[in-house]
Amino acid sequence: MDGSNEDILATETFVQQAMDIIMEDVVRKAGDTRGKVCEWRSPEDLKELLDLELRPDGEAHARTLQRCRDAIGYSIKTHHPHFFNQLYVGVDPYAMVGAFITDATQPSQYTYEMAPVHSLIEDVVLGKMMELMGWTEGGDGIFNPGGSMSNMYAINLARFQHCPNIKELGLSASPRMVLFTSEEAHYSVVKGAAFLGMGTKNVYMVPSDQRGKMISVELEKQIQAAKLEGAVPFMVLATAGTTVLGSFDPIEELADVCEQHNLWLHVDACWGGAVAVSSRHKHLLAGIHRAKSVAWNPHKMLMAGQQCSAFLVRDKTGLLHRCHSADASYLFQKDKFYDLSYDSGDKSVQCARKADVFRFWLMWKALGTRVLELRVDRALDTARYLTEEVKKREGFRLLMEPEYANVCFWYIPPSLRNIPESPEFWQKVHVVAPKVKERMLKKGSLMVGYQTHRDKVNFFRMIVISPLVGPTHMDFVLDEIHRLGADL
Amino acid sequence: MDGSNEDILATETFVQQAMDIIMEDVVRKAGDTRGKVCEWRSPEDLKELLDLELRPDGEAHARTLQRCRDAIGYSIKTHHPHFFNQLYVGVDPYAMVGAFITDATQPSQYTYEMAPVHSLIEDVVLGKMMELMGWTEGGDGIFNPGGSMSNMYAINLARFQHCPNIKELGLSASPRMVLFTSEEAHYSVVKGAAFLGMGTKNVYMVPSDQRGKMISVELEKQIQAAKLEGAVPFMVLATAGTTVLGSFDPIEELADVCEQHNLWLHVDACWGGAVAVSSRHKHLLAGIHRAKSVAWNPHKMLMAGQQCSAFLVRDKTGLLHRCHSADASYLFQKDKFYDLSYDSGDKSVQCARKADVFRFWLMWKALGTRVLELRVDRALDTARYLTEEVKKREGFRLLMEPEYANVCFWYIPPSLRNIPESPEFWQKVHVVAPKVKERMLKKGSLMVGYQTHRDKVNFFRMIVISPLVGPTHMDFVLDEIHRLGADL
Repeated sequence: MDGSNEDILATETFVQQAMDIIMEDVVRKAGDTRGKVCEWRSPEDLKELLDLELRPDGEAHARTLQRCRDAIGYSIKTHHPHFFNQLYVGVDPYAMVGAFITDATQPSQYTYEMAPVHSLIEDVVLGKMMELMGWTEGGDGIFNPGGSMSNMYAINLARFQHCPNIKELGLSASPRMVLFTSEEAHYSVVKGAAFLGMGTKNVYMVPSDQRGKMISVELEKQIQAAKLEGAVPFMVLATAGTTVLGSFDPIEELADVCEQHNLWLHVDACWGGAVAVSSRHKHLLAGIHRAKSVAWNPHKMLMAGQQCSAFLVRDKTGLLHRCHSADASYLFQKDKFYDLSYDSGDKSVQCARKADVFRFWLMWKALGTRVLELRVDRALDTARYLTEEVKKREGFRLLMEPEYANVCFWYIPPSLRNIPESPEFWQKVHVVAPKVKERMLKKGSLMVGYQTHRDKVNFFRMIVISPLVGPTHMDFVLDEIHRLGADL
Repeated sequence: MDGSNEDILATETFVQQAMDIIMEDVVRKAGDTRGKVCEWRSPEDLKELLDLELRPDGEAHARTLQRCRDAIGYSIKTHHPHFFNQLYVGVDPYAMVGAFITDATQPSQYTYEMAPVHSLIEDVVLGKMMELMGWTEGGDGIFNPGGSMSNMYAINLARFQHCPNIKELGLSASPRMVLFTSEEAHYSVVKGAAFLGMGTKNVYMVPSDQRGKMISVELEKQIQAAKLEGAVPFMVLATAGTTVLGSFDPIEELADVCEQHNLWLHVDACWGGAVAVSSRHKHLLAGIHRAKSVAWNPHKMLMAGQQCSAFLVRDKTGLLHRCHSADASYLFQKDKFYDLSYDSGDKSVQCARKADVFRFWLMWKALGTRVLELRVDRALDTARYLTEEVKKREGFRLLMEPEYANVCFWYIPPSLRNIPESPEFWQKVHVVAPKVKERMLKKGSLMVGYQTHRDKVNFFRMIVISPLVGPTHMDFVLDEIHRLGADL
């Protein structure tokens, strides 16, 4: 490690060998159903196996390569066609290559000087995403580390626009400001409100209907009530594609309410934004052209790789910059010789910022918008197939008709099928999903999430994304859940 | 793109070819001084060259591979031995391989279920980092997307500990809380205070001495003054390795003041934390064992690749979890079959979280702590060599003796060398660095930052990190600046 030529050659060989392992153990296995989805080990056993301790001395390349193999081997196979556990699955191969390139070249997106290629690409991709939102006049935006951050950006911008003094004086000098979201919204809204100093109790939870959609009449009532309390309503966070049910809030109706009360409408479309590329499904976002801001994570349905998360704001007056600027003299020199409008750093609340946009752009270039559309349509067709199968098959009960790629259902083992639907019945159903989940992890055959929701006992939430899965995989899921749970 | 075997094979070939490009155009060129540091193009020219537009149709693999080559070609060569522009440089090859693996496997660190390997690794690495801080009792922590975020974590924890009601009720129900940092602190403190609703004016800037170190007597005065104003002091953010000068605040002294006033002491050691691995230099952090929290970015001096940023908190009561938990039912089910203490998601303000720790761990395993130490020592030796050369050479003026890897100096072209040091002289010196910077970018021979600082006109700030650079590269820097600026 003294920088000699021998060292350099040895290191190059190591990198080459590690790349070969990635090809062999990840890329070539991506679509393969023969291997396991996971090699479950308890934390205690896995610690023993991996020898994680950091020591004064380094290790030989052979040992490090084995560590690479082990890390891959004991990680969840998020590319596996039987992985349906989260709102993402693996990564598109073009996006993966894009990620490798940014990891190898290490641009940081504060200035054009440090990220010329990526600054331009970010502008183009944000522009295209805004076009898909129907923002004919354009706007502004920034890629950032995740949808939770995007929602925080929205809250910060909305309150800043409502009361610009907050940036300098803080909230202790402001009245009690409240924001509204639905009970179905992602928990990051509440987390973000706490982090931003708003307080979790100042997030008003608007009831949603049976389909999981925010009820605009209830929103109206809560706004009135908040005003009577002397609080200051300033924004509504709607959701396009909720985490559990995949529901879409009625954006047009909410936009009407927001316009009437002069509230900022933000749409958390992290999960559902992808339907914007599909002519068959984009109606789910109807009204999003009226939102003031949108969060959309291409790393979810579009498989652009974690984390690839865009915050879009329909403002052309530089609000994002004014809200977040700090004018650091060592980065944003005013006497640079190029057009400073390409320096995005003062729009961000970060300093260094990874070029997450690049892999999305590379993938989009390689596939074209039409293939993105085909993929979304295909995933939703597959989710529809699964829904129909759940309805058809004995022992499966659909929670509700899905709008999107979340299919929620209970598995009722044979022993419970003839019991009347009493609270006791549901308590027995409640323990089925965790037990089946434990068995699928230990067997490594399948990964599907489960959870309770409001008054509903534990059910499975299937998320269908990958273009590599279709009806046969859906059949496998239901067959496998039955195999794992038939004796319960 | 229909998921057929031919598609899959073609995609594998594409990935292989792209990996070959990364080997050829990045890895094998890392230590090479023959190529340029950058291929400067104006934004307008680069847009023309790159054809960034996103279209309905995709592109052939050959075209996509060319896009990979172009993205690399027009990006800044952060690995180049003549790149000294930021507080990071390239990425260590082991860390790069680690990044590739996480990009390929896509773990997300909310639960042990989804990131078994990485959850355990995070515990081990955080533990080791805390050990290096001298926290004999251990503590807690989390990797997150950058030092700005870490500083925000610190502010949020400190205010929550001071007044737990803030999480629920927000700051509008709290008195005016103020925090203290030095004029030399990173701008993320002010940005973070704004984002968290504290208000930029509630960040009190404590003067620092000529070496850039916060003056503890001034801190004491400001705390008293704030209390007289009726404000509520709750924390001090010290810096270990400031952005511009590389100064280290006197942590012991500040800890005394904090203990006396019961304030949370956070140390932003994003840049300087790396000296903890060096027995020669760790004295710079003396007193950090008394800090309540520390931010340390291994992606800076230790070259772990962006972004690799640890927030450490000396608390064992679960403060981090209590402060940030939201108990999302779909992720943090209470009826899971394994030990839930490995689910880190509710410590985080994000939901999905990249496994940034893995590449740091892999690199640390491969190199061992001793090589990390050698690298830090070597970088500081090289910075010392540069300092002595600056002092020796005609036409170069040192701003101040460096403590760390930041070497700040002016270049005085021959035409100005015999002018007396009047305000006019300094105004002329002021325009030298931007002009030389423009020339070095356009020539592609070197990248060094420049800036003003307080009453100082534009100067160069050299940052020395890479184990591949030594005295010959330092000589090149000074020679090249002279070549570029001799006619000014």
